Amino acid sequence: MEKIILDCDPGHDDAIAILLAAGNPNIDLLGITTVSGNHNVENTTRNALSTCTAYGIKVPVAKGSPGPLVSDQVLAVEIHGETGLDGPELPPASFDLDRRHAVDFIIETVMAHEPKTVTLVPVGPYTNIALAIRKDPRIIGRVKKVVAMGGSYTRGNITPAAEFNVYADPEAADVVFRADWDVTMVGLDLTQTQALATPDLQDRVRAVGGPIAKFILDIWAFIATTHGGLLQIAYPAIHDACCVAALIDPAIITTEKADIRVETAGRWTKGMTVCNFEKMGGMRHFGGTAGEQVNFRHTVAMKLDHQKFCDLIVDALERLSRNKA
Amino acid sequence: MEKIILDCDPGHDDAIAILLAAGNPNIDLLGITTVSGNHNVENTTRNALSTCTAYGIKVPVAKGSPGPLVSDQVLAVEIHGETGLDGPELPPASFDLDRRHAVDFIIETVMAHEPKTVTLVPVGPYTNIALAIRKDPRIIGRVKKVVAMGGSYTRGNITPAAEFNVYADPEAADVVFRADWDVTMVGLDLTQTQALATPDLQDRVRAVGGPIAKFILDIWAFIATTHGGLLQIAYPAIHDACCVAALIDPAIITTEKADIRVETAGRWTKGMTVCNFEKMGGMRHFGGTAGEQVNFRHTVAMKLDHQKFCDLIVDALERLSRNKA
Amino acid sequence: MEKIILDCDPGHDDAIAILLAAGNPNIDLLGITTVSGNHNVENTTRNALSTCTAYGIKVPVAKGSPGPLVSDQVLAVEIHGETGLDGPELPPASFDLDRRHAVDFIIETVMAHEPKTVTLVPVGPYTNIALAIRKDPRIIGRVKKVVAMGGSYTRGNITPAAEFNVYADPEAADVVFRADWDVTMVGLDLTQTQALATPDLQDRVRAVGGPIAKFILDIWAFIATTHGGLLQIAYPAIHDACCVAALIDPAIITTEKADIRVETAGRWTKGMTVCNFEKMGGMRHFGGTAGEQVNFRHTVAMKLDHQKFCDLIVDALERLSRNKA
Amino acid sequence: MEKIILDCDPGHDDAIAILLAAGNPNIDLLGITTVSGNHNVENTTRNALSTCTAYGIKVPVAKGSPGPLVSDQVLAVEIHGETGLDGPELPPASFDLDRRHAVDFIIETVMAHEPKTVTLVPVGPYTNIALAIRKDPRIIGRVKKVVAMGGSYTRGNITPAAEFNVYADPEAADVVFRADWDVTMVGLDLTQTQALATPDLQDRVRAVGGPIAKFILDIWAFIATTHGGLLQIAYPAIHDACCVAALIDPAIITTEKADIRVETAGRWTKGMTVCNFEKMGGMRHFGGTAGEQVNFRHTVAMKLDHQKFCDLIVDALERLSRNKA
Repeated sequence: MEKIILDCDPGHDDAIAILLAAGNPNIDLLGITTVSGNHNVENTTRNALSTCTAYGIKVPVAKGSPGPLVSDQVLAVEIHGETGLDGPELPPASFDLDRRHAVDFIIETVMAHEPKTVTLVPVGPYTNIALAIRKDPRIIGRVKKVVAMGGSYTRGNITPAAEFNVYADPEAADVVFRADWDVTMVGLDLTQTQALATPDLQDRVRAVGGPIAKFILDIWAFIATTHGGLLQIAYPAIHDACCVAALIDPAIITTEKADIRVETAGRWTKGMTVCNFEKMGGMRHFGGTAGEQVNFRHTVAMKLDHQKFCDLIVDALERLSRNKA
Repeated sequence: MEKIILDCDPGHDDAIAILLAAGNPNIDLLGITTVSGNHNVENTTRNALSTCTAYGIKVPVAKGSPGPLVSDQVLAVEIHGETGLDGPELPPASFDLDRRHAVDFIIETVMAHEPKTVTLVPVGPYTNIALAIRKDPRIIGRVKKVVAMGGSYTRGNITPAAEFNVYADPEAADVVFRADWDVTMVGLDLTQTQALATPDLQDRVRAVGGPIAKFILDIWAFIATTHGGLLQIAYPAIHDACCVAALIDPAIITTEKADIRVETAGRWTKGMTVCNFEKMGGMRHFGGTAGEQVNFRHTVAMKLDHQKFCDLIVDALERLSRNKA
Repeated sequence: MEKIILDCDPGHDDAIAILLAAGNPNIDLLGITTVSGNHNVENTTRNALSTCTAYGIKVPVAKGSPGPLVSDQVLAVEIHGETGLDGPELPPASFDLDRRHAVDFIIETVMAHEPKTVTLVPVGPYTNIALAIRKDPRIIGRVKKVVAMGGSYTRGNITPAAEFNVYADPEAADVVFRADWDVTMVGLDLTQTQALATPDLQDRVRAVGGPIAKFILDIWAFIATTHGGLLQIAYPAIHDACCVAALIDPAIITTEKADIRVETAGRWTKGMTVCNFEKMGGMRHFGGTAGEQVNFRHTVAMKLDHQKFCDLIVDALERLSRNKA
Repeated sequence: MEKIILDCDPGHDDAIAILLAAGNPNIDLLGITTVSGNHNVENTTRNALSTCTAYGIKVPVAKGSPGPLVSDQVLAVEIHGETGLDGPELPPASFDLDRRHAVDFIIETVMAHEPKTVTLVPVGPYTNIALAIRKDPRIIGRVKKVVAMGGSYTRGNITPAAEFNVYADPEAADVVFRADWDVTMVGLDLTQTQALATPDLQDRVRAVGGPIAKFILDIWAFIATTHGGLLQIAYPAIHDACCVAALIDPAIITTEKADIRVETAGRWTKGMTVCNFEKMGGMRHFGGTAGEQVNFRHTVAMKLDHQKFCDLIVDALERLSRNKA
C-alpha cells in the first residue's frame, strides 16, 4: 500500500491518473494538490474537484501555485482546450477545497506521517514541490520518494528539447532534481511512445461501460484531435497514469540509473532534462569537465509493460464503477 | 560527378572517408583541408598526408585551424589515441602541403569553380568553414551545398546532448547552420547506430586483401577498444564516410526537412543541434515564441541503406588497391 | 507613520537597520523576518532575536528561508564572521520566535492590513519575498511598496558586476523586480560610497554612550577590518539602514526612474541589476531589441543626504537608550 | 616611434584617430584596416579611403570583415548617420585598396616586422583581430601589444551594461581579451566622460583653420546632435583617438591592472567587459569560485590628461595642414 500525494494539473491524462490512484487498492491517495500547467490553477483545481465529485473520490484537494517559480507562465491550452479538460462533461464540484495551500498540505502531510512512507507524484509542473522544499527543506529527508511525470532523454514535446512539465517551470524542476532524495523520471520516452490508448485498450474501456467509460473515451477522443495534429502520435498518450502504475506494480516499468540535470540557461534547450546514464559510464564532458565524478542517483523509466498497464487502468475503472454504484 | 572539398580531422573514420572519396569514380576530390578535432591540427594534417601517401591519393592537402572559433579546445584523444590515428601503421608523407591556409584554399577553390558546383564536406569541427564564411561571405551563395557529419536529433556522444564535432566548436557550427545555404546534417542518429562495421562488412574488407584492407581492419580493431568501452556501440561506427556516400548515391540515406539550431549558451547542452522537424508541424515553443514562423530549410539524415553503404566502401577499397598496384 | 516588515539577515548593518526602525517614531515595525544571507538562517535569526532582546525591541520575529530559491547558497562569512555578527557581544534571546514561517508572516501581515499600507523592506537576499509572491500573488497588489537594499547601477561588491544580496539569490531578485509593484532599489552606489560611518558619526554615536553606543561602535570596528581589506572602503558602510531612513524621510535620498533587469544567465554577470535610466531615453539595444517600448517603473536611489542620515541614526540610538533605561 | 595598425570603422571619432595617427611624428602608421561597426564595411572602408585622400595620408588601407564572428550584426547608424560619417564632406577616394583582406594584412604585417614591434589598435568591433588570431595564432606572441578602444568598467552606451564595439562582436572581444598578449582597454569610463571636445578644444581647432579644421568641427557638430539626444553627453566624445594618444605619450592616461572577462552569455549583459581590479584584491566570487587564483594581466585606462590630449590633436592637425599645403 503506497501512500501518495498526487500533484497535478488536470488535464486529460491527469484525470486518468486520479482515477487510477483512487481506484486501485494498493494506493492510499492522501490528497490531491493542484498547480497551473495544462491550464491555470483555477481550472485545474475545478477539474480535480469535478473529477472527484463525478466518481465518488473522497480525498482532500488543496489548491496550489498559480504560476512558475521564476519563469514566465506557459499553458498547454492548444492540447487541453479552454477549460483544461475539454471534451468530456463533468459535474460541478460538490465538496470544498482543503483550507490549506498545496505547499502547506504537502509539508504538513509529509511531516505528519512516519519518515519515508509518503511518495510524491508530481505530474504537472513541479512548482508546488519546489516551493515546499524551499519552505521546509526537512521534507527532502522525510519523503519516501518522488515519481514524476516529465522530461525525456531523447526529445521533447513542447520544444524539440523539452517536455512540457519541465519547460513550464524549469527552475522548479532543477530544484526537484537537485534535491537529495530519490527521484524517478517517467518521461516522454516511455509515456508518449509506449503508454498509448490503443484501439484494444479503448475497446476494453468501452466494455466497462457506464459514465466512467464514457468519460475516459471522451478524453481520448478529444486528445486524439490535438495530439494527432501537433504531436504526430498514433494514439492518445496516457502520460500521468504511468507514475501511479509504477507505484502499484514496479515491474510495470524497467528503469536505468542516471545523473539528470535540468537545463535552465539554454537558448534553444531550456527545460531539457539531460540524462547521463550510468551504463554509458558517464559521458566524457558532462558538466564541462572530463573525469568529474558523477553520481548516478536518479532513476529513469525506460520500458513500459503495456499489457499490465492496460490491466491496471481497466481494473481501476471497474472498481470505481462498482463503488459509485 | 560531385566536386567536393573534404574538411577533416583524421581520425580513424576520417581516413575511411578520404579513401571512399578518392576511390569512388563519382567523386572529384578537389582537396582535403584539415582542422583540429579528433587531435591537434599537426597530427590530423600528418595523418591526412600519410593516408594519401600510403594509398596513392594525389590531391592538395591544406592545413587549417589549430583551435575553435571562440570556445576552449577539446580533443578526442580518448577515442583516437595519442597520434589521432592510433592502431594502423602509416608511412611518412611523401608530398608537401598546399601552401595555402585551409580557409583560403576553401575560398579560392569555391570561387574558382562555377557557381553551385562545389560541395563542402566538413567531417570534423566546422572551424575552417565558419572562418571561410566570415572571411569571404560570397562563398555562401557560391557553394552547391554542405554535407556535414555532426550533431544529432536525439542524443550526443561527448555529452548526453552534444555530438563531438559540434561540441568542439559550437560557435562555428552555429555560423554554418545559420548561413543561408543548403546544409545536410549527417548526425549520430544515422552514423553511430546504422553505419557500423559489422562482422559481415569486416569479412568483405578482409577479402579485398593487401595493405589497404589491413589498414581498415586495424582502424576498426583500434576503434572497437575505445568505442566499446566508452560509447557502448556494438561495432565500430563509420561516421564520416556517410557524408561521402550520400553524395555518391543520394538514395543511400533518407532525409527529413527541419529547422536546426545550435545551442551555444546552455549549461548542460552546449553544442547540441536542436532539430525542429517539419513533419511535426513545428514545435509549439521553439525559440521561446509560439507561432513564430519557422523555416524548415535544413536537411537531416535519417536512415542509412547499410547494404549499399558497405558496397561503396568495398568498391572504393578495391579500386584504390588496383590503382596503387 | 510607515508600517514596515523588515526582512533581514543580521549581519552588522542589518542590526543598525533594526535599531533605526525600532527607534524612530515614524516607523511602525510590524515584524522582523529573517533569511539566510550574511550567514545561515539559524545565525541571522538568533542575531535578530538577540539584538531585539538587548535593546528592548518587542516585535514579532519570524524565521524564514534557509537558502536561495534556485541557486546554490553563498554566505558572506568573510565579511560578517563566524556568527554572522562577529565583534559586539549580545545577550541570548529572551523571547520566542513567531510560530509562523517568515513567508506566511509576510503574507498574513500584508493581507491583515488595509491595502497599500504595508511596506516591505528586504535588506538581505530576497528569498522570502519571492516565495511570498509565489505562494500568494495577491500581496503584489496589496503591498504599499518595496524598498530594497541591494544591487548597483555601476559595480558590485561580491563580483565586479553583482552586489551580494542579489547575487546570493538572483532568481528571487528577478521575481521581486519583475512583479508589478513599486520597488525602490537602494544599491551600492548609494550605500557603499555615501552611507559611511565617518569619524564624525562615530564621535556622535560615542557621545550617546551606554551599551547601545558600544554595540554600534563594535559593529563598525569589526566591519572596518573586513571592509578595509576586501572592499577598499574608507569607512564602514551602513547599507541596510538607508532603506529605513528613506522611509522615515524621503528627502534623505534623491532618486531616478529606471527599468531594472536582474541578470540570471550571465557567465560573469550573474546577479547584476542592469539599470536602464529614463533620463538616458532608454538604451538602444536593451533587451536585444532596439526600439522596444521600455517601462521605467523602478526607482533607483542616487544620492544620500549624509547629514540627515546621521541625525536619524543618532536620534534612534538616543531614543532606544532612554526607552531601555 | 610606435609602429601601429589602426583597425577601425570610420565613423566620426575614427576619422580623428586616423588623423592623429598620421599627423603625429611618433607614430608609424603601417596601415589601416576596416571593419563593419559604426556602419557596414563598404561605408567604413570608403570613409577611411576618403579621409586619407582628403588629407594626403598615404598608407595601405585593407578592407576587412563585413560582420561579426558569431553574433548578429548591429550597426550604429543612429549615431553616425547613413554614410557612417554624416556631416562633413569628403572627396572620393583617389587611391586603391590594398589587395589583401584586412585579416591577411594584419597577419602578414605583424609577421614581416621584428617580434614585439607592431602594436594593434582596434577601435571598432574586434572581428578582424579575432579572425587573425584564429587564422594564424603566431601573431599572439609576435605583436607588441593591443591598445583597444571599447568596453567599460562601470556602464555601457548601447546597453546599460555594454559598450558598442564589444557588444557588436562579443565573441571576437572574448577571443581578443583571452589571448595571451598585452591588452590595454581604453573604455567609456575614460573616452565618454573625459575625452570630450570641449568649447576650448573646439576653439583651438578652429584656430588651425583650413579644410581640416572644418572637417573636425563638422564631425563634432554632427556628433553633438546624436550624442546629446541619445547619450546625454555634454560635448562630443573623441573615443578612438585616445588609443593613439596613449601610444604617443603613455603619460596621457593612468592605468590599473585587472582581469577582464567579456560576457557572451547574459540575457541583459551581453558584451559587457567585467573588470576585476587588482587593487580590490580580486572580488570574492569572480568566475563563480571564491579564492580562484586571478591573473590581473589586462590594463585598464582610468584617467586622461585632457590638456595633453588636446595638445596632441591640435598638433597633428597643424602638421597635416602644413604637409598637405
